[in-house]
Amino acid sequence: MFDILHRVGVISGPSEVYSALTTVEGLAAWWTEETTVTDDGILQFRFAEGGFDMKVLDTRPNELVRWEVVDGPAEWIGTHVRFDLKQEDDFTIILFRHEGWAEQVEFMNHCSTKWATFLMSLKRLVETGKGEPAPDDVKVSNWH
Amino acid sequence: MFDILHRVGVISGPSEVYSALTTVEGLAAWWTEETTVTDDGILQFRFAEGGFDMKVLDTRPNELVRWEVVDGPAEWIGTHVRFDLKQEDDFTIILFRHEGWAEQVEFMNHCSTKWATFLMSLKRLVETGKGEPAPDDVKVSNWH
Repeated sequence: MFDILHRVGVISGPSEVYSALTTVEGLAAWWTEETTVTDDGILQFRFAEGGFDMKVLDTRPNELVRWEVVDGPAEWIGTHVRFDLKQEDDFTIILFRHEGWAEQVEFMNHCSTKWATFLMSLKRLVETGKGEPAPDDVKVSNWH
Repeated sequence: MFDILHRVGVISGPSEVYSALTTVEGLAAWWTEETTVTDDGILQFRFAEGGFDMKVLDTRPNELVRWEVVDGPAEWIGTHVRFDLKQEDDFTIILFRHEGWAEQVEFMNHCSTKWATFLMSLKRLVETGKGEPAPDDVKVSNWH
């Protein structure tokens, strides 16, 4: 199995970051404006190219958010997305993992770069009040 | 062994991207301004926090650049950095790999995010004429 890893530090307390990871309003302000939640708690993220459905596996306030991908591109289904939070200096550090890819396909390269730009969008949201969610996200290539 | 993967598309022909990966002037304009080359061809990249020495293992014009890390942080020594280039639509696609990490240490998370921002700097350099090399690189956390 293969994993995408990232580390971003947000100049803020942990509760602002945790809120951006656990509320529809927060998620819509840095990942994709088309974020909704179903009656049974599945998070649905939609983009021009498609989308992802996430089941929340675990949350610990100001420390951890863990999702399982239950629908989306074949390569994503069954993988896990994990955000571990901790405090260092004036920063809330996000240790990010998108883990359990079966193969190192080219789409994994793409998703790794996109996750970095979205995590920078999350940092910007919490630090300045304005992120860069889809459809106005940072474009990294012909795959957007 | 563990790898960092990225995929960035640059709106340009391949020769501009290849040049930015294989000349001191090009490398200094997107990665770090303190880029030099020794008499025996070792590329030396320096940052406020330290640096990396790279031996060029392989180059194929407009297609491939491959380096071995011969000096730098312990986690980097012996790892390989690889840029594969190909054309799609109006883009030169860079498939990036920093491969051969022994462990998924937190520093690997950091380097993955930093590589993404530096590859976006390379994209910006070729597309606009101005990258964001160190020391004025995009800061992602307390580790810079």
